[in-house]
Amino acid sequence: MNNLREVMELASRPGVLSFAIGLPASELFPREALAEQAARVLREDASSLQYGLPYQPLKSGIVELMRLRGVRCTEEQIFLTSGSQQAMDLLSRLLLPPGGQVMIERAVYDGIRLATRLQKPEVLTIASDLDTGLDIDEVEARLAGGARPAFLYAITDGHNPLGVSLSLEKRQRLAGLARRYRMPILEDDAYGFLYYGETPAPPLRAFDDEWVYYMGSFSKTLAPALRAGWVVAPPPLAARLSPLKHGADLDTPSLGHRVISAYLESGLLPAHLEMLRDEYRRRRDTMLAALKEHFPPEVRWNHPTSGMFVWAELPPGLDAVELLQTAVETESVAFSPGMVFHAEADDPLGTRSMRLNFTSLSPDRIEEGIRRLGRALRTMIAVGAGEGIRTPKPEGGGF
Amino acid sequence: MNNLREVMELASRPGVLSFAIGLPASELFPREALAEQAARVLREDASSLQYGLPYQPLKSGIVELMRLRGVRCTEEQIFLTSGSQQAMDLLSRLLLPPGGQVMIERAVYDGIRLATRLQKPEVLTIASDLDTGLDIDEVEARLAGGARPAFLYAITDGHNPLGVSLSLEKRQRLAGLARRYRMPILEDDAYGFLYYGETPAPPLRAFDDEWVYYMGSFSKTLAPALRAGWVVAPPPLAARLSPLKHGADLDTPSLGHRVISAYLESGLLPAHLEMLRDEYRRRRDTMLAALKEHFPPEVRWNHPTSGMFVWAELPPGLDAVELLQTAVETESVAFSPGMVFHAEADDPLGTRSMRLNFTSLSPDRIEEGIRRLGRALRTMIAVGAGEGIRTPKPEGGGF
Repeated sequence: MNNLREVMELASRPGVLSFAIGLPASELFPREALAEQAARVLREDASSLQYGLPYQPLKSGIVELMRLRGVRCTEEQIFLTSGSQQAMDLLSRLLLPPGGQVMIERAVYDGIRLATRLQKPEVLTIASDLDTGLDIDEVEARLAGGARPAFLYAITDGHNPLGVSLSLEKRQRLAGLARRYRMPILEDDAYGFLYYGETPAPPLRAFDDEWVYYMGSFSKTLAPALRAGWVVAPPPLAARLSPLKHGADLDTPSLGHRVISAYLESGLLPAHLEMLRDEYRRRRDTMLAALKEHFPPEVRWNHPTSGMFVWAELPPGLDAVELLQTAVETESVAFSPGMVFHAEADDPLGTRSMRLNFTSLSPDRIEEGIRRLGRALRTMIAVGAGEGIRTPKPEGGGF
Repeated sequence: MNNLREVMELASRPGVLSFAIGLPASELFPREALAEQAARVLREDASSLQYGLPYQPLKSGIVELMRLRGVRCTEEQIFLTSGSQQAMDLLSRLLLPPGGQVMIERAVYDGIRLATRLQKPEVLTIASDLDTGLDIDEVEARLAGGARPAFLYAITDGHNPLGVSLSLEKRQRLAGLARRYRMPILEDDAYGFLYYGETPAPPLRAFDDEWVYYMGSFSKTLAPALRAGWVVAPPPLAARLSPLKHGADLDTPSLGHRVISAYLESGLLPAHLEMLRDEYRRRRDTMLAALKEHFPPEVRWNHPTSGMFVWAELPPGLDAVELLQTAVETESVAFSPGMVFHAEADDPLGTRSMRLNFTSLSPDRIEEGIRRLGRALRTMIAVGAGEGIRTPKPEGGGF
């Protein structure tokens, strides 16, 4: 879609209520605590600004944190990165030869496509179910049929963009497939600590410690600008990442890594995570209630139990980019059209789906934004009624 | 040399006086001012921890800074990186195709070799003169002979490892060659603000704004852990770096970038640079005087006017790695053997040269370390005298 960039630029105009970007809530960052730790680290430790080896105390803190997530690991398995995007980049450089195969979902976080772009890979796409996640039968069939991807990229909890979490049975089967076919899985767990019901099943890494390379991040739980992520991987593989990171940005600790380590040592993270989950749960519930009240019955959406996104599908015949344009121009409200995330540009699902972020706006603004979006939708449907829009599920609501 | 890694590990033992690593002096970091700015940025600005576009105020600050360096540029020409190692990595990804040619010096900063390693380039090496830098005649002859490197990598001032600065005439000729042969030059100016005599000639970028891609860094002037560098390049090229950085680590501002920007706005940098130059000049002079006093006359070294390193050459027949091993074991003092920096592992110059860092130790410890190294040297020469060590310049001293 040619005008997508322009529409997205429109969507960032001041005054537009935007559900488009996957931002954590700025007002919930623990700024005061981080300011204290930053000042303390800088004042007390002359080495805090110097070159050095990857910061060992942060690795220790992450081992503790992984335990909360149901993963047992050691410091030797932790490799520190500048956010999990860098983990994707370094793992892609290590594992993916030029022209090699990668297995990703039809609707996928675009960062993995950027990280693998220079290798010009052969992309194998897999369908996903909006209740239970990745279609494991399809993964198995592709592998049985001879596919040998350099890796499968997966988001187990709070999928971006689909909002879905992988069922326990699928986690177990997928880990088994990785072992049987010796297929590395890049597990992106950026949203794993943001769950809104009971503690979710542990990530894939808990079911296999040889083929699952886990990628974690503090961007969604603490703050993006600290640029801190990590990989949990077998020590020989973690060791091979170090010269790659040295070539990429020197593999030396940043101020952000030291500040996070000090914050973890202060013991404040568990309470901060509780607060985040409470607040994001409230925002998710506000969005789901507003969708039910304001969206026309022809639209369907899911009920995420983790993460930052609701995924919605318009009835056949409606185009999400056209809706976005109308919504921005007439109602000053924006979202991400699904095609942004589709691995194949002509995927028909991409044209009529939308990703709605529920973490970055306050509950009031979420309610107001969905109300406006509902009006834009109803207008489009009314106009399009004579043009053959089908209404497959007149009762509307969730999937 | 098989045991080099082990020797370098020995060299990092506690108690060893080390001239081996290119560290800025930790005790000179403006920690108090950075602590204040970090706390202020975090407390006052809710967006300081959020995702966002590359930080525009830092670009403005860098435009001002470049003016001090004799370079006129605009914000559109500035591309922000996570240290200048990332600049090398991204520029290599952009410019160097697999198996392409790169032109580097025989003795070269090893970061550029790491940044280009995955492309398995054909490496064209050029000699350097220890008084005036890169051998421009050889560059010209290679280009006239048909060489078409993806780029030439050069350090104009305070060369790492050679300590030399390029003469003005060579700067002008090199910029002319870049234009004539349409050859990009990656100019690494990590040390350009650290000069100890009169203000040096401006960098190559001042003589050509089309083919010279300038790489700057705050690691040596402020602090490495802030992880901030930049490229000055024509805007179309700078724009092409952005998706590469997005794939590498998201191209979003880090806490370090915001802290540096606040520090620059406070107006403290010029005085800080003056202080650094004064103190590093004292350390350089201490090292040069100690070399004259304690080193045997068979050893030669240069007198750097910028940067952080003295380069020394042992007489033929002495091996720098053997000297390092002896020096660490008997005198608890270390340096970097030249072979670490040689593009070709079997380069004969690599085996008998040494890089001595003069910025990381206090003047007292520099004097003591050179005294110890001199003793280790004299012992080796006495032992080796019967084994045919030649003494080419009995008067010793500088080049």
